[in-house]
Amino acid sequence: MHIGIIGLGKMGANMRDRLRAAGIDVTGYDRNPALTDVPSTAALVEALPSPRLVWVMVPAGAITTAVITELAGLLEEGDLVIDGGNSRFSDDFTHAALLAKTGVNYIDAGVSGGVWGLHNGFGLMVGGAADQVERAMPVFDALRPEGPREEGFVHAGEVGAGHYAKMVHNGIEYALMQSYAEGYELLEKRDDLIKDVPGIFKAWQRGTVVRSWLLELLVKALDEDPDLGAIEGFVEDSGEGRWTIEEAINNAVPVPTISAAIFARFVSRQDDSPAMKAVAALRNQFGGHAVKKAD
Amino acid sequence: MHIGIIGLGKMGANMRDRLRAAGIDVTGYDRNPALTDVPSTAALVEALPSPRLVWVMVPAGAITTAVITELAGLLEEGDLVIDGGNSRFSDDFTHAALLAKTGVNYIDAGVSGGVWGLHNGFGLMVGGAADQVERAMPVFDALRPEGPREEGFVHAGEVGAGHYAKMVHNGIEYALMQSYAEGYELLEKRDDLIKDVPGIFKAWQRGTVVRSWLLELLVKALDEDPDLGAIEGFVEDSGEGRWTIEEAINNAVPVPTISAAIFARFVSRQDDSPAMKAVAALRNQFGGHAVKKAD
Amino acid sequence: MHIGIIGLGKMGANMRDRLRAAGIDVTGYDRNPALTDVPSTAALVEALPSPRLVWVMVPAGAITTAVITELAGLLEEGDLVIDGGNSRFSDDFTHAALLAKTGVNYIDAGVSGGVWGLHNGFGLMVGGAADQVERAMPVFDALRPEGPREEGFVHAGEVGAGHYAKMVHNGIEYALMQSYAEGYELLEKRDDLIKDVPGIFKAWQRGTVVRSWLLELLVKALDEDPDLGAIEGFVEDSGEGRWTIEEAINNAVPVPTISAAIFARFVSRQDDSPAMKAVAALRNQFGGHAVKKAD
Amino acid sequence: MHIGIIGLGKMGANMRDRLRAAGIDVTGYDRNPALTDVPSTAALVEALPSPRLVWVMVPAGAITTAVITELAGLLEEGDLVIDGGNSRFSDDFTHAALLAKTGVNYIDAGVSGGVWGLHNGFGLMVGGAADQVERAMPVFDALRPEGPREEGFVHAGEVGAGHYAKMVHNGIEYALMQSYAEGYELLEKRDDLIKDVPGIFKAWQRGTVVRSWLLELLVKALDEDPDLGAIEGFVEDSGEGRWTIEEAINNAVPVPTISAAIFARFVSRQDDSPAMKAVAALRNQFGGHAVKKAD
Repeated sequence: MHIGIIGLGKMGANMRDRLRAAGIDVTGYDRNPALTDVPSTAALVEALPSPRLVWVMVPAGAITTAVITELAGLLEEGDLVIDGGNSRFSDDFTHAALLAKTGVNYIDAGVSGGVWGLHNGFGLMVGGAADQVERAMPVFDALRPEGPREEGFVHAGEVGAGHYAKMVHNGIEYALMQSYAEGYELLEKRDDLIKDVPGIFKAWQRGTVVRSWLLELLVKALDEDPDLGAIEGFVEDSGEGRWTIEEAINNAVPVPTISAAIFARFVSRQDDSPAMKAVAALRNQFGGHAVKKAD
Repeated sequence: MHIGIIGLGKMGANMRDRLRAAGIDVTGYDRNPALTDVPSTAALVEALPSPRLVWVMVPAGAITTAVITELAGLLEEGDLVIDGGNSRFSDDFTHAALLAKTGVNYIDAGVSGGVWGLHNGFGLMVGGAADQVERAMPVFDALRPEGPREEGFVHAGEVGAGHYAKMVHNGIEYALMQSYAEGYELLEKRDDLIKDVPGIFKAWQRGTVVRSWLLELLVKALDEDPDLGAIEGFVEDSGEGRWTIEEAINNAVPVPTISAAIFARFVSRQDDSPAMKAVAALRNQFGGHAVKKAD
Repeated sequence: MHIGIIGLGKMGANMRDRLRAAGIDVTGYDRNPALTDVPSTAALVEALPSPRLVWVMVPAGAITTAVITELAGLLEEGDLVIDGGNSRFSDDFTHAALLAKTGVNYIDAGVSGGVWGLHNGFGLMVGGAADQVERAMPVFDALRPEGPREEGFVHAGEVGAGHYAKMVHNGIEYALMQSYAEGYELLEKRDDLIKDVPGIFKAWQRGTVVRSWLLELLVKALDEDPDLGAIEGFVEDSGEGRWTIEEAINNAVPVPTISAAIFARFVSRQDDSPAMKAVAALRNQFGGHAVKKAD
Repeated sequence: MHIGIIGLGKMGANMRDRLRAAGIDVTGYDRNPALTDVPSTAALVEALPSPRLVWVMVPAGAITTAVITELAGLLEEGDLVIDGGNSRFSDDFTHAALLAKTGVNYIDAGVSGGVWGLHNGFGLMVGGAADQVERAMPVFDALRPEGPREEGFVHAGEVGAGHYAKMVHNGIEYALMQSYAEGYELLEKRDDLIKDVPGIFKAWQRGTVVRSWLLELLVKALDEDPDLGAIEGFVEDSGEGRWTIEEAINNAVPVPTISAAIFARFVSRQDDSPAMKAVAALRNQFGGHAVKKAD
C-alpha cells in the first residue's frame, strides 16, 4: 500500500512515521521544504500509484478547502481523498461534492490522540461510503491503537459523520477537563484541610469512578509542577467546542456542561470582563456599593 | 406610634427619616455616638412606651444575634422585635424562639430598595403572626412605597417567610443583573456594527419587554461613564445569593441562572483561576499546546 | 406621509392601527384577503407615492427574503424598505445589497413590545444610513411609546445594527424570564414556609430592586391562575435566543445565563431526556443503582 | 490482623470478602441476622483483640452518628474507628471529637469503586493522624487496587480530609457523567447523519482524549441496550454532589459544570417544571404565545 499525506506538521509527521512503521509506503508533501518528500502537490499525485489514496492533514477551513480544490484538479476517477484534519462536518459535504464531480471519492476522518498518537495510536472516527472505508482499512488499522479494531475505530456513517463524531468528542473533552479543573480548584482552595492535592489526583488513578486518561495527564502535570505555579490560567479554544454548541443549539439539545466549559475559557482570556463591569456599575447604582476603580 | 431602631447605618438612618416624615416617633440607637439618639440599648428600651416595638437594622449574623440576645434580656412580654436586616431565614427561627421565652414577639422583615428607599419607599416582605404584623402595620405603611399596599408589602407567612422571600428576591436580582450584563458585553464586543451601546439601553426603557428598574440604573451608569471605563469588573456578593443556591440545592430546585450569576462574581474576583491553570496544564499535556507562563 | 405595510398579522395589523391613529396613511397588503387593503404587492407599490416607503412585517427567513426579492423587482431608486420583522441581522446585509442594486434603500428595525405595542407603543432599534433613518422618523415616532424619543427608539448603527440590538434584547429577555422563574419555583417549593407566592411577586412591584415589566406580567398571570395549574411547563423558543448564543460563541463572549435559559426551554419540551438516560445507565453500571424502567 | 466491620450491605460485604481474601481476619456485624457474624455491636467489640480496629460502613448521617455514638461507649483508649461510609466531612469533626473523649482514634476514609471494588479494589482517600493511618495500612493495602499504593490510596490530611476528597471526587464524577451524556444526546439526535452511536463510544476507548472508566461503562450499557430504550431518564443524586456545591459556594469557587450536572438531575425527576410554567405564563402574557394547557 502506498499513500500520500499532505501536511507534515506535528500530527501529519507522526502519522507518516506510524504508517511507515506498519509497512505502508508514504509520500508526504508539505510547504516546508525541510519536511516534504516531494516539491509539490502535483508531484505527490504523480508519485502515487493509481487508484490513489491521499490523506489531507492541514489546518481546517480555508487551507483544507484550498488543498482539496487543488486535488480536485489533479486526481482522477476512482482516487480517494481522506480529510484527517479538524474540519467542520458541514465542510465535508462541500468537499465531497467538489471531488465527486470528477469521480474522486471522499472520506472524513476525525482523529484523536494528540502528540501521544505516534506511540499509542490515534482514535479514528470516519464517515463515507462503506467500500471506500474498506479500501482504506489498512491505513486506518496502522494508525489506530493496538487492540480490537472497534475499540479505536468507528465507521460512524456517511460523509460528515466522522468529523461530526470528532466534534462531539471534543465538546465532551472540554467538559471533562473543566470537571476535573473545578474539583482541583476546590481542593486547592481548602489548603487548611487538604494537605496533598497532587496525591489525591494520583490516588484516583486506580479503582475510582473518575479514573481516565485525562486524569493521568493531570497527574503528570502536577508531578512536574505541584501547584501549577508556572502556568497561567489562560486557555484557548479551537473550533470544535464552538461547533458542538452551535450544533446543540440548532438541534435543541441542552449542553450545559459543554457550554460552561467553553465560557470558562472565554473568561480566562479576558483582562477585564465588560459584563462584570456592568454588574459592578449596577450594584453601585442601587446599593451605593463601592466599586473598584480601574487603574 | 413610637418605635425604636437599633442600627443607624445607611439603611437604618434612611428608615428613621422616612418614619419621622410619616409622623411616627423614632428613637434610634447606634454604637456610633455621632448617629445615636440614646447612649445604649437599655436606654432605648427605657425610652419606648410599652408594649414596645424595636426595629433591628444591623449586619446579619453574629451582630444581629448579639443585639437580639441583648434585647431578650431587656424587653418584656408583649413587646415586638422586627429584624429588618438581611438575616438568613434560618436565623429567624432561633431568634424568635429566644425572644419567645420571655413572651417577646418577633417579625422578620426583608427590605429591598437600597439607597433609593428613602425617597421611593422600601419594598417589604414580612413573616410572623398575623396579629403582630397587623400591629406593626403603621410602620410598614410608612416605610413601603406609595401606592396600593399589596404592591410594596407582603405578609409572606410565619416567622422566616419574610427573610426567605427577600433571599429569593436577591437571588433573582443577581441573575437579572447578569442577564443585562451579558447582553451589554455582546453589544460592546461588536463595536464594528453597534455604534451606540448606551443609546440601545436607553431606548429599551419604554415599550420593550426588558424594561425594568435595573435597566434604568444601567442607563444612569452608562450616562455617567459610557464605556464603564472607570469601573473594574470586580464584584462582591452578599450572603443572600449564596443562601439562595444552598436552599435550591437542599430542595432540589434547579437554579442555573442564579448560580451562573454568582459564579461569574466569584471569577471576577480572582487574579488567576486555579481551575483554568488545570485546564491549560491538561491541554499542554495532551496536545502540546503552548501555555502562558505565569510571570 | 403614506406608508405601505406588507404583512398584517398580529404585529402588522397593530402597527397599521397605531400609525393611522397618528395621522399617517397606511396601505396594507396581506395574503389573507380578509386582512389586505390591496390585492397584491404590485398593487401596494402602485398605491404609494414616490419615493415609496414600505414596511415589511412578515416571518423572518425565507418569507422575508421572498418579499424583499419581490420588492426589489417592483421598487425604484430612492424608495425605502424597512424590515420590521425578527430577521437575523446577517440577513440584513444580503437584503440591503439586493435592494441596493436598483438604488432602493434599506433599514432594519427591531421591534419589541408584543401584543401590548398597540397601546403602549413599540420599542424600536434601527440600523441604516442616517438620512434614511431621518426620513422615516415620522413613522418611528408614531410607532414608539410616548415620552422622550431616546427612551423608546435608537439608531444603533448601520444596516444590521437594529436587528442585532433586537437579537440581544431577546437573549436578555430569555434570561430575565428564567431568573424570575427560578425564584418562583423555589418559593413555590417551600409551601411549608411560604404561604403567599403570588402576594410576594405582587409586592415586588414597587420599591424593590427586581421590579420590571416582566414582573408585572407574572403578577397578572398569577392573578389569573395563582398556582399556574392550567399551564404546562412547555416552552418554545424563537430564533433570536439561539442566534444570541451563536453570536456570543463567535465572539468569545460568555453568556451563561442566556444559554441556561435556552437550555431550560429545550429540556421543557422533551418527553424524556436521552442525556439523563445515559446518566441513569452509567449510575446503574458502576453503583448498581436501580434505574427506572421505561414503560 | 483482625478487624471488625459494622454494616454488611453491598459495600461492606464486598470489603469483608476482599479483606479475608488478603488474609485479614474480619468479624462483621449487621442488623440483618442473615448477614451478621455476631449478634450485636457489643459482641463485635468483644470479639476483637485490643487495641481494636473497627470499620464503620453504614449509611451517612444519623445512622453513622448512632453507630459511632454506640462505639464511643464500648471502645477503649487506643482503639481506632474508621468511617468508610459517605459521611459529610463536617461530620468527621464531630465524630472524632466524640471518640477522642475516651481516647479512641478516628480516621475518615472516602471509598470509591462501587460494586466493582470487590474485584478491582477500592480507591481510598483517608484523613487522620499519620500514626493511625500507618497502623491501618494493612487494611488499606488489602482494600485498594493492585499496583503502586499511591495510585489507589492517599493520606489527604487530618481528620475530614478523606471524606472531603471523596466529596470532590463525586462532584467531579457527576460532571463527567453529564459531559458524556450531553455528547450522547447530540449524537443520538442526529440520527440522519450518525448511524452507529454505540460504535462511536466503543471506538473512543483506545487512543482518544476522552477515554475513561466511565466511558467503558457507557459502552457496556450501550452493548446491553443500544438506544437505552429500557431506561428512563430519571436520576437520583446522593448528598456528595450537593455538598460539593455547598462547599464551593462557601469558598467562592465557581463550579459551573458540577452544578449543571446536579441541576440536570433535579429536572430529570420533575413531572412538570414550576419554573417553566412561569416562563410559559410570561410568554403568553407578553406575546400572546399559546401555552400548553395542563391536562
